[in-house]
Amino acid sequence: MLKLYYAPHTCALATHIALEEAGAAYETVRMSFQSEDQKKVGYLAINPKARVPSLVTDKGVLTETPALLAFVAQTYPAARLAPLDDAYEFARAQAINSYLCSTVHVAHAHRMRGHRWVDDEAAIKAMQRKVPTSVGECFGLIERDMLAGPWVLGSAFSICDAYLFTLAQWLEADGVDLAKLPRVLDHRRRVGERPAVRKAIADETSQALC
Amino acid sequence: MLKLYYAPHTCALATHIALEEAGAAYETVRMSFQSEDQKKVGYLAINPKARVPSLVTDKGVLTETPALLAFVAQTYPAARLAPLDDAYEFARAQAINSYLCSTVHVAHAHRMRGHRWVDDEAAIKAMQRKVPTSVGECFGLIERDMLAGPWVLGSAFSICDAYLFTLAQWLEADGVDLAKLPRVLDHRRRVGERPAVRKAIADETSQALC
Repeated sequence: MLKLYYAPHTCALATHIALEEAGAAYETVRMSFQSEDQKKVGYLAINPKARVPSLVTDKGVLTETPALLAFVAQTYPAARLAPLDDAYEFARAQAINSYLCSTVHVAHAHRMRGHRWVDDEAAIKAMQRKVPTSVGECFGLIERDMLAGPWVLGSAFSICDAYLFTLAQWLEADGVDLAKLPRVLDHRRRVGERPAVRKAIADETSQALC
Repeated sequence: MLKLYYAPHTCALATHIALEEAGAAYETVRMSFQSEDQKKVGYLAINPKARVPSLVTDKGVLTETPALLAFVAQTYPAARLAPLDDAYEFARAQAINSYLCSTVHVAHAHRMRGHRWVDDEAAIKAMQRKVPTSVGECFGLIERDMLAGPWVLGSAFSICDAYLFTLAQWLEADGVDLAKLPRVLDHRRRVGERPAVRKAIADETSQALC
């Protein structure tokens, strides 16, 4: 059975939602970043990058959200979570997920994980000051150009919706001006109403720490 | 015909190599970052993110290197540039490309593009000081865990080799200690000897500015 290692309030929620939307048989292992579970020897043997999510499959461990989302979509094609039969449409989905991973999530990470890129305390504070602007610009682009409607790719819910919804959870804490993002907020509300999404969030907020 | 917008010395080289390895019919358009071509109105209509690469197809424009690489592999399956018939193996390739995009390239970008995440000049300098360490740690992980050998995924050359080779071009300028990376350097040398790679590089270094 698939096993998802996640920590609450992280991008692992996107894969959790995708597994739930796919109707996959899976179990979850909750990690505590407060306890630095991700840096413990047992977990580093699973994922030497000391990050979540990690998905343990019967063939081995997979990491990186865009890869996991495509894996779930390809493994459960009946759930139609990505356009799998058209290389161009699949690449459109991948491009959005890649942007969310390498630009949007990275901009956000400068608020919480500045030590990845700088040692100086004043520089970390300078990074934090720019997060409302840099994350806001990313979501401004999404608002204008990357929400075909009603879902990210158009008429069908996909892995891109799960991922955008997950990163949009952090808008308030990142200090982004929400008034400029009516379409993003409407999308976030509608994704949040889906039963699979509610179940994934309920699992993450109710499960006892392991 | 496919049209690749690139700038020299950028990650667009990975897609250029993949197109050449695939035997694709394509043309290239060279952009100058010195002239800020990527911020001009004509290009923003192609790619509002003001980045390279962009790949114009007969269905529309695609962006983001991991998406483009998978698109080339799927569009030219005879070239066997990715494990397309196994969702787990495909996800392994995607995970490596996602790591290269969102962690390795991002660490490097703190040397040249610090203004994305900070406005303060002292903080930009603080970022630059950490690049040898942060990029070095990324490549240390690649050296240990992400080079199955002889190619990234194992016995077959793939899109992951094109991407790793491209980012490994920047190791010296990033100040990384090369003595710790014998396998990465051996891989870089062997990829650089491939005829398709030589051709892509020659095209990028000889083509007149448009």
